[in-house]
Amino acid sequence: MKHTKIKDLLCCTKPLTDVTAKGWVRTFRNNQFIALNDGSCLNNIQCVVDFENTPEETLKRITTGAAISVTGDLVESQGKGQKYEIQVKKIEILGDSDAEKFPMQPKKHSLEFLRANAHLRVRTNAFGAIMRVRSVLAYAVHKYFQDKGFVYVNTPVITGADAEGAGEMFQVTALPLDNLPKNETGGIDYKQDFFGKHTNLTVSGQLEGETFAMALGQIYTFGPTFRAENSNTSRHLAEFWMIEPEVAFNDLDDNMDLAEDFIQYVVKYALDNCTEDLQFLEQRLIEEEKNKPQAERSEMALIEKLKFVLENNFKRVSYTEAIDILKDSTPNKKKKFQYIIEEWGADLQSEHERFLVEKHFKCPVILYDYPANIKAFYMRLNEDQKTVRAMDILFPGIGEIVGGSQREERYDVLVEKMRVLGIDEEELWWYLDTRRFGTAVHSGFGLGFERLVLFVTGMTNIRDVIPFPRTPQNAEF
Amino acid sequence: MKHTKIKDLLCCTKPLTDVTAKGWVRTFRNNQFIALNDGSCLNNIQCVVDFENTPEETLKRITTGAAISVTGDLVESQGKGQKYEIQVKKIEILGDSDAEKFPMQPKKHSLEFLRANAHLRVRTNAFGAIMRVRSVLAYAVHKYFQDKGFVYVNTPVITGADAEGAGEMFQVTALPLDNLPKNETGGIDYKQDFFGKHTNLTVSGQLEGETFAMALGQIYTFGPTFRAENSNTSRHLAEFWMIEPEVAFNDLDDNMDLAEDFIQYVVKYALDNCTEDLQFLEQRLIEEEKNKPQAERSEMALIEKLKFVLENNFKRVSYTEAIDILKDSTPNKKKKFQYIIEEWGADLQSEHERFLVEKHFKCPVILYDYPANIKAFYMRLNEDQKTVRAMDILFPGIGEIVGGSQREERYDVLVEKMRVLGIDEEELWWYLDTRRFGTAVHSGFGLGFERLVLFVTGMTNIRDVIPFPRTPQNAEF
Repeated sequence: MKHTKIKDLLCCTKPLTDVTAKGWVRTFRNNQFIALNDGSCLNNIQCVVDFENTPEETLKRITTGAAISVTGDLVESQGKGQKYEIQVKKIEILGDSDAEKFPMQPKKHSLEFLRANAHLRVRTNAFGAIMRVRSVLAYAVHKYFQDKGFVYVNTPVITGADAEGAGEMFQVTALPLDNLPKNETGGIDYKQDFFGKHTNLTVSGQLEGETFAMALGQIYTFGPTFRAENSNTSRHLAEFWMIEPEVAFNDLDDNMDLAEDFIQYVVKYALDNCTEDLQFLEQRLIEEEKNKPQAERSEMALIEKLKFVLENNFKRVSYTEAIDILKDSTPNKKKKFQYIIEEWGADLQSEHERFLVEKHFKCPVILYDYPANIKAFYMRLNEDQKTVRAMDILFPGIGEIVGGSQREERYDVLVEKMRVLGIDEEELWWYLDTRRFGTAVHSGFGLGFERLVLFVTGMTNIRDVIPFPRTPQNAEF
Repeated sequence: MKHTKIKDLLCCTKPLTDVTAKGWVRTFRNNQFIALNDGSCLNNIQCVVDFENTPEETLKRITTGAAISVTGDLVESQGKGQKYEIQVKKIEILGDSDAEKFPMQPKKHSLEFLRANAHLRVRTNAFGAIMRVRSVLAYAVHKYFQDKGFVYVNTPVITGADAEGAGEMFQVTALPLDNLPKNETGGIDYKQDFFGKHTNLTVSGQLEGETFAMALGQIYTFGPTFRAENSNTSRHLAEFWMIEPEVAFNDLDDNMDLAEDFIQYVVKYALDNCTEDLQFLEQRLIEEEKNKPQAERSEMALIEKLKFVLENNFKRVSYTEAIDILKDSTPNKKKKFQYIIEEWGADLQSEHERFLVEKHFKCPVILYDYPANIKAFYMRLNEDQKTVRAMDILFPGIGEIVGGSQREERYDVLVEKMRVLGIDEEELWWYLDTRRFGTAVHSGFGLGFERLVLFVTGMTNIRDVIPFPRTPQNAEF
């Protein structure tokens, strides 16, 4: 008999006879009440067992984590907490779960313990909710861009170009490391490697994306990117998913408009489509913060915070204005910042970004027009010859969630910049071709998907919003 | 002034004054007619220049590949081939394109030449169409699964597990290859590598996906996968995108139903949403095949072929039946096959698959219940103890497009199989946990996305349906 998803059973508007549900036992109370979950939604369905007419042997096997199939009538529940429940007529144990050994006990586990059991943590309420929200957010990303006519582009993961300089790269090779072939000068002979050259994992699809934007007009990427940086923080992963739209004929203002509209759209989409999961995560956060001193707790509850982002424009502030604000700020004057802001040109640290967002403006902030020498080579130089058309979007609790820019479309200016920075023109011949043939103003940005999921779920460690996190010393599963 | 996308201009139902379009010049005829394309759709908009009142210097710069902005009135066209055109009042050259040097001349280029210019080929009609169709197909994949309540799961790209054995793997490392650290026994000390162990690029997200299916019920992956195989064919890439749904409580029949319904959905979605691009690609294929002998040409035109797949059930044939058909076939008897089918148990080669699909059944075929010893360890053993619940979907012109199976859910049977094949139980402890705790029947499949794009676009080389192909000796861009 075909089973029905628990989500659909819980949405029923009238009783039904002979329904079948399949799922995993969350709890079994009083030898009578099974809380059954199949992952289709946060809520369990209550299955009431006729324990007097069920063999003792079967009852013993209804343990936390066991997979079962139940058939019975969907009736209005006598108890509270649920509208409908299943009066079980038939129960089948599909797969046992030794209650002593099953790691996901019906109690609170630490996030560290759950990370070490990333293959099972998704059977908990919190991680089920997080992964459903993540999935819906990913879909919202595609829906937003596709509805606007953007073309989804899969830029390569393995790349021969390592000029972008966005970060340390992982090397990819098919050579035997214990018997590396050597060339005439005694170096490693990459000509014998799979691709005939030295290759890395991509840090960004932007440069390839630009070539497509200069043909298709509006494109976006959404794929994995990599950083071999030894950053053991709650905000960094060695492998993460990035969204990079790129639009021909957009200037920096258009770019900021796009980024703001995009973020508001996907947050609203999650609010509209993950209500139950977000309510659960909001409650989880409140519980979690009960152990913190008042001053460290979130000022807003999760859903309130998400609505705040929808209903308020992001504050747009130039780097120069930001520096003035920071120089005059109390933590700067009282030397509470680890890095004191002395003068224009300083790179902003996380502490400064958080001050601007969380203390000064108390809303998402877009900083723009950064000093040229602290930003990437491809950003468009302003008329002042000192600043570039860069923008970063800073979010409360998250820090930088978006980094973008108007790109330097002028061939001569771009080549000069590359020469100064020692970036190989030969290697990026194809990138320069976009400026050689029909160049035009264009802009784009990158959004770290996991940082978005962090923000929307209210989680605080990025390792908890990706199925199997990759961090220094950790590539389990 | 804000510009309007050419797609929207071409859809207008009444004349408009003062519209602006931006894009790249495809051709410029008679010093008067610009064919302008911005990638928003296949078609160009004709822009009529008042050449008598336009400076000679400007006219000279309207060359193939140049980026321009035109402002004027959208009026009904006097000429044929388009309903509306722009009577240009103002023209601005945004970026020049030296007509002598621009590689994408307004003539037919070979596919090989275009591959070497993958950053520019997307400015041609064919590659613009292919990349738009690819994007729409990717969206259809997400839409299909999300509408059915599947959860999108990003399984890891970098993996410490290399037990799956789906193919040769690329190694990922942050160690300096010219100065590898050694351990006490003289081997490479992977403890000093970024992840503290030997890591590879994933060949499949299936095993991780199964752990999520056993919690969330219905999941799918859609991400890049890798094979370090020296296969220089028109059907293989070293880096390709794969879709892998996995469903708890589905048996092999459910799995076949899902795969067939899914493929029909995405093909229909492309037919409904890429009409213009598919018509162009159909015509392209007809032109291309004109140079081939009649016998080698496609029996159906592209759109007819796609509709055929929608309107006909896939033929389901057991491996055993297929062997009987092949043994009795003319090419087998006349020894025309390179590999003669002698007896049950033989692995099927591409030539056999193509015979079944293209000559015998003349429709998509699902082969199922393969001999256990030619299939992967995780496939469910049938009661006959000889065959496993595997299925492959074979498509005309493409060969295998889907490979899937019902998974071995029985812990003891699975472990026994792993021992026989020498697969490390320790390494796959987390995978075995799904069978230890609440195991259940479940099934899934993998679909190579580029093979789907090949089929839908009618292209014949897989390098032409991915933006920047990665193949032996090729990681340019």
